[in-house]
Amino acid sequence: MAESSVLIEIFVLFAAAKILGEVFEHFGQPAVVGELLGGVLVGPHLLGAVGADSEPVLELLAELGVIILLFTVGLETSLGELRHVGRPALLVGFLGVAAPFALGAALMVGLGYERGDILFVAAAMVATSVGVTARVLRDLGALRTPPGRVVLGAAVVDDVLALLILAVVGGLAAGDLSTIELSLTVLEVLVFIVVVGVAGPGVVKKVSELAHLPIVPGSPLVFALLLTLGLAALSETIGLAAIIGAFLAGLIFEFNKSEVTSQVEPIYEFLVPFFFAVTGSRLDPGVFIDLSIVGLAAAVTVLAILTKVGAGYWGSRSLGRGDAMLVGVGMVPRGEVGLIVASIGLGLGIISADLYGVVVAMTIVTTLATPPVLGVLVRRRLRDSPRAEEP
Amino acid sequence: MAESSVLIEIFVLFAAAKILGEVFEHFGQPAVVGELLGGVLVGPHLLGAVGADSEPVLELLAELGVIILLFTVGLETSLGELRHVGRPALLVGFLGVAAPFALGAALMVGLGYERGDILFVAAAMVATSVGVTARVLRDLGALRTPPGRVVLGAAVVDDVLALLILAVVGGLAAGDLSTIELSLTVLEVLVFIVVVGVAGPGVVKKVSELAHLPIVPGSPLVFALLLTLGLAALSETIGLAAIIGAFLAGLIFEFNKSEVTSQVEPIYEFLVPFFFAVTGSRLDPGVFIDLSIVGLAAAVTVLAILTKVGAGYWGSRSLGRGDAMLVGVGMVPRGEVGLIVASIGLGLGIISADLYGVVVAMTIVTTLATPPVLGVLVRRRLRDSPRAEEP
Repeated sequence: MAESSVLIEIFVLFAAAKILGEVFEHFGQPAVVGELLGGVLVGPHLLGAVGADSEPVLELLAELGVIILLFTVGLETSLGELRHVGRPALLVGFLGVAAPFALGAALMVGLGYERGDILFVAAAMVATSVGVTARVLRDLGALRTPPGRVVLGAAVVDDVLALLILAVVGGLAAGDLSTIELSLTVLEVLVFIVVVGVAGPGVVKKVSELAHLPIVPGSPLVFALLLTLGLAALSETIGLAAIIGAFLAGLIFEFNKSEVTSQVEPIYEFLVPFFFAVTGSRLDPGVFIDLSIVGLAAAVTVLAILTKVGAGYWGSRSLGRGDAMLVGVGMVPRGEVGLIVASIGLGLGIISADLYGVVVAMTIVTTLATPPVLGVLVRRRLRDSPRAEEP
Repeated sequence: MAESSVLIEIFVLFAAAKILGEVFEHFGQPAVVGELLGGVLVGPHLLGAVGADSEPVLELLAELGVIILLFTVGLETSLGELRHVGRPALLVGFLGVAAPFALGAALMVGLGYERGDILFVAAAMVATSVGVTARVLRDLGALRTPPGRVVLGAAVVDDVLALLILAVVGGLAAGDLSTIELSLTVLEVLVFIVVVGVAGPGVVKKVSELAHLPIVPGSPLVFALLLTLGLAALSETIGLAAIIGAFLAGLIFEFNKSEVTSQVEPIYEFLVPFFFAVTGSRLDPGVFIDLSIVGLAAAVTVLAILTKVGAGYWGSRSLGRGDAMLVGVGMVPRGEVGLIVASIGLGLGIISADLYGVVVAMTIVTTLATPPVLGVLVRRRLRDSPRAEEP
């Protein structure tokens, strides 16, 4: 049995994350921000109820949480939609990754940061966390409008590209990669994605037929968990982030999908908050006493917003100005992937606590700022063309 | 992020446990035995795919698993039934704890073992794992017959007494307790159980009303998890086993109980196998090369069976000979609580790998031997008095 202090820390971290998460939801804000702040609150830099000595076990819960999170993201991502995604969605996805990465990197270069810092901060600015936007659009009944579809499609493109960038940045961090090694890493990721994406569905189907799984209750879930843990472990073994494998597992899983989706929900509720709370607990709010860090956080946040709005607007301008603006704003929230990038950078000692704080602040601000603005835009759109909703 | 090897070990352990569990279920055997053997197979003593270096994180998963397990046991235990449990059930419960403990201790004393060994082995022989019996009775439609009710009622009494014994044995292990300290430990457990049992339901009701929880989806589960982790941590803080708190949490939880029961199921499926697999991985099958250990295991197992059958038969003899025998056999399977006792003893360095092996062997044999015998008895009973089933 583990030491008693570990169990107390697990309880405190879970309670802080869930209670603040519920408070935020109660006031119409994203729960994820509450979970992050719960981690900041009880973490070693503020209350200190969760210390550094139990780190390995809390890290494990956080890692399992983010693996489950990326599995569900993959599960909600339709391979079919990925193939039939329209031109605007593709454009928004590509531009929305390229613009923040390029301008973020330019900012960091201009400020004289080193290579590792530049890469990790720029990479952390890339990925849209579509959950917040999808939630707002669903609540207002606008998920299946043209801009809603473009945002969802672009988010898929965005996810895949962000994971690719993470793999490259991770490879660069592991050693000083040459151009050849860099190309090999990119190739490896692409091969992994293509092999799993192409061969995976068939294998999954075969195995589930062979095992006659439906006779045993609960088995689809067990099969999903085995696939997820297996691909996550495989992904790490070949030098990629575990979440890439977890995402692919969700993407190719097709067996009793609706049942698994609802069965994985309680596991999600239990484990995923640990990821956000542990991520929050690593933030030292003290870094913001330094006004130059506050300035940098503000600059990164403004850049993160402007590049996504610009890319979203320009990429979907064929939808008309109102809808294009809606797409742009819908792409703004950052979340789990950016935080993962920052966590890896901090864990490897590549980025400092200061820069970690900058990324977390950017994530919180973009996530908090989007819902109100999006709500206004969606309501205006529905008022102007109430029949545009497609069933 | 944790090291890559940890994720692989988690996958291997989970896969071995689940696959062997499914194979055992497929052949009509208890899945829990498959999960145990899966752990033995991949553990450090056989294949070595799961080593000792990642122990803290695997122990954490095992501990969370056993906490979830005891929470669900508590959830399935009705406080009302506990109050209205009939005289035979009470008698079977008390005798079924006293007899194996007394005779087990006598055997160990006779063989010249030391105090710690005597206490831990005797304590590990005490608790019936009613899951296997309940499953067989349910499958055959005999759960609500008089012997079925007696077994379920006795199992509750049995659980509470076993946890009490575990607390005392744990206290004895922590230091060389005097009679006064021993009485204080017993008192502490009783006070903890009574305070939580009496005040708990009211507090739970108040909190769930205050929090207006039903407005937030998933909240009953979150509330249940908070209660479980909180009472488990509290229980450990005051020097008791975490599972005592987890069991009490399940016992007093009454808020949206059916919803929580089904929501906790996927978490159970994910985490509980880690407890049995880690328990199995600690078993060194090499101890059974020593024939004296095999002899001891046989003696302990025979004693474990005879004492439970005897106590069950004698305690419920008012039901008639056929039903009394059914009760006796139904009380035979040992499981999680005995394994927990043995794990704690092994972890504290009080019992040896040999004695740990003896307990695990006894658990496996009693669990495997019960279903076939019980099946014959139940079918004979239903054939002789087919209308005895009470709806």
